[in-house]
Amino acid sequence: MPINFKNFINSQALKSKMNDFQDLDHIEGVSISTISANLYEKPRDDVVMFYFRDGANYASVYTKSKIVSENIKWNRNIKSKKIKSLLINTRNANTFTGPDGYKGLKEIAEEISLKLSKKQIEDEAHPTKVSVDEIIFGCTGTIGEKFPTQKIKENISELVNKINYIQNKYIWMKAALGIMTTDLKPKLAMEECEIGNKKIKIYGIAKGSGMIFPNMATTLGYVFTDADLSNDILNKLLKKNIETTFNAITCDGDTSTNDMVSIFSTGKVNNTNIKNINDKKIKSFDEALHLVLLNLAKRVVADGEGASKFITINVLKSKTEEGAKKIAFSIANSPLVKTAVAGNDPNWGRIIMAIGKTDINIEINKLSIKLGPMKIIEKGQLSKNYIEDDAKVYMKEEKNINIDIDLNLGKKNFTAYTMDLTKKYIEINADYRS
Amino acid sequence: MPINFKNFINSQALKSKMNDFQDLDHIEGVSISTISANLYEKPRDDVVMFYFRDGANYASVYTKSKIVSENIKWNRNIKSKKIKSLLINTRNANTFTGPDGYKGLKEIAEEISLKLSKKQIEDEAHPTKVSVDEIIFGCTGTIGEKFPTQKIKENISELVNKINYIQNKYIWMKAALGIMTTDLKPKLAMEECEIGNKKIKIYGIAKGSGMIFPNMATTLGYVFTDADLSNDILNKLLKKNIETTFNAITCDGDTSTNDMVSIFSTGKVNNTNIKNINDKKIKSFDEALHLVLLNLAKRVVADGEGASKFITINVLKSKTEEGAKKIAFSIANSPLVKTAVAGNDPNWGRIIMAIGKTDINIEINKLSIKLGPMKIIEKGQLSKNYIEDDAKVYMKEEKNINIDIDLNLGKKNFTAYTMDLTKKYIEINADYRS
Repeated sequence: MPINFKNFINSQALKSKMNDFQDLDHIEGVSISTISANLYEKPRDDVVMFYFRDGANYASVYTKSKIVSENIKWNRNIKSKKIKSLLINTRNANTFTGPDGYKGLKEIAEEISLKLSKKQIEDEAHPTKVSVDEIIFGCTGTIGEKFPTQKIKENISELVNKINYIQNKYIWMKAALGIMTTDLKPKLAMEECEIGNKKIKIYGIAKGSGMIFPNMATTLGYVFTDADLSNDILNKLLKKNIETTFNAITCDGDTSTNDMVSIFSTGKVNNTNIKNINDKKIKSFDEALHLVLLNLAKRVVADGEGASKFITINVLKSKTEEGAKKIAFSIANSPLVKTAVAGNDPNWGRIIMAIGKTDINIEINKLSIKLGPMKIIEKGQLSKNYIEDDAKVYMKEEKNINIDIDLNLGKKNFTAYTMDLTKKYIEINADYRS
Repeated sequence: MPINFKNFINSQALKSKMNDFQDLDHIEGVSISTISANLYEKPRDDVVMFYFRDGANYASVYTKSKIVSENIKWNRNIKSKKIKSLLINTRNANTFTGPDGYKGLKEIAEEISLKLSKKQIEDEAHPTKVSVDEIIFGCTGTIGEKFPTQKIKENISELVNKINYIQNKYIWMKAALGIMTTDLKPKLAMEECEIGNKKIKIYGIAKGSGMIFPNMATTLGYVFTDADLSNDILNKLLKKNIETTFNAITCDGDTSTNDMVSIFSTGKVNNTNIKNINDKKIKSFDEALHLVLLNLAKRVVADGEGASKFITINVLKSKTEEGAKKIAFSIANSPLVKTAVAGNDPNWGRIIMAIGKTDINIEINKLSIKLGPMKIIEKGQLSKNYIEDDAKVYMKEEKNINIDIDLNLGKKNFTAYTMDLTKKYIEINADYRS
């Protein structure tokens, strides 16, 4: 169900949210505007424009699906090293829309180019043109439905009119709300850090697995910083940090045709030139970026369809990181484990099953399993201190369930995040349209 | 919920079932007895003995899980080429039961050896002893619970007393009922065929993904024939036919520690000696075995937890069989596809998503998708004849949903079978114990 922004902005939920983000203000060089292009039956903000008036360096990671949306194809064709605008619509995935879908993006990019170029020339401080090759797109929503080119195009002029160079902090919340599909909560994260004694901001927004009409679960994440970093550095930092954040979460093991996470740096802070991600001066930024991405990724899981519990699975002391990851995801994607958590059932037999079904070799007499603080299996034997009733109380009372798998075979670890599988998931995914 | 056998045997369900199997009688050389060893709170047949009085050649395939039950370990240690008895209990998985679990099986095997040897000597026609090494076990049920060695051992004497060499056809139904956990229906299949003009019978029973107390979903399948075939031939025929039957089904993508499918041949029909599975004389048997295994595998899926629809996924014209299989299972295991079927929603976007998320390369402009008789995608384009309302009617009215994916890239096909994902699945797996 689309969120009514006017109700939401006045609600207790938003106020408490805003307390989390009271320091959010603006990132120099980033402007945001949102609009309802009437893509939904009940109007809500459904198109969000990010405008980087002096351009932004950027890097993106896209879905690994072999079938991708037209906007992902568009983005991959961009040659420009700097981006001036990112436009996101949250109603139409622009997948299986054929040449018309791609052509629609081109028409919209031409309109954005025209209107933003006009604005840049009017605002004498930024008198360069915005080219079609400096615009990228985020899309999520229904697959195979005609892309609403006209409706979006008609609203570009107003989106550009609404742009302010200095914006109040609520604009970030509006952007986070504007990219939601059936997410129940907007997802924002912010960190501050330093590069060579210069203070740097990193803000991010994301949307999670939700459905429209109903269709695809899609993850979109956009991160913005005022640091001055090259595309190469941004790319390396994003690829490195995505592995333990957005690539460490799973809701239902399904992957969309539209998944996209991007980082944009406006370069407004005149920090030291960074040529290598092993440079000590980038360490604080690297850590802060990791926190922003992890925070957003966790919010996606916590708001996964039908989720009532957040599950963290730590696989420890594996021979290889790949092995740790396979076991962690085998547990995280197991419907039997996820329904057991939904039912407050410390059913460790299902964890054993999920460990066993991967192709990773383990040694049972070295395997230990913990549920929260409780040891269940110690070196292949049921722990003498394990009391199932205590485990049931833990399952029932905790909203955050921790499962630790210690393989005792090596030095590599991997942590995966997921949520439980509830009747609500089936309701959302089976009953929504019927 | 355990089935009350007395009620069931008189029920309309059984009567109509028995009509399906009116020709089931006995397979020469196989005797069956069943008993309640009080493994459940409410008594029901929970231990089933198969007795091959002159031994049976055999072959087995076991779970691919890296963590296996003690009975799978026991069976793998058997050196004897002929088997005299198979004992199945349906309450305790004998997994993570440590050395005690294995020792329990040894004690029970010793008791079986003692009692069957006594019987063999009394029945002068079969005056050889039954050794511990001629006995294998099937187990399914709770993981990590002490194995009920004593309760089972105490009932061996009575199980042996109940053995008749010539049995009525109901004994097969009793065996199929006796190996059920939370299966709603017993699963039997039978075929007749020929080897070199000699008439051969092949009977099979199976249990599917069910839960006890609740725990693991386990598949057990046992096939019996009066043909005279070597262990080598049985092994090759079983491995070949399992790929397109029991290895082509999925309920929730989870694999148990106890899965086991075996074939036993008593050699009571004096058929031509078969040395090679490419021998033309084995063709009729090969086909009949495939039908028995496919029939049982389909019954397992149709009776999968919470299933309301049976789904057949045909992936056609793939470059490799492995590729066809990966795509078929990606669709069959996708919670989003399975919930769409539960909701009667012809949500082909989710099928696209599931095809795209595998690591198999496809060419979109060659891809065609059919839902039942309706073309949805033709060579990468939405079919002009596709009418969504017709697709909705198909989804709603059909109990058997067919999805055809034509890759148009090669000559290999694979068919996977699954069922939909319903609220009932969550109820069974999350709420059962709470």
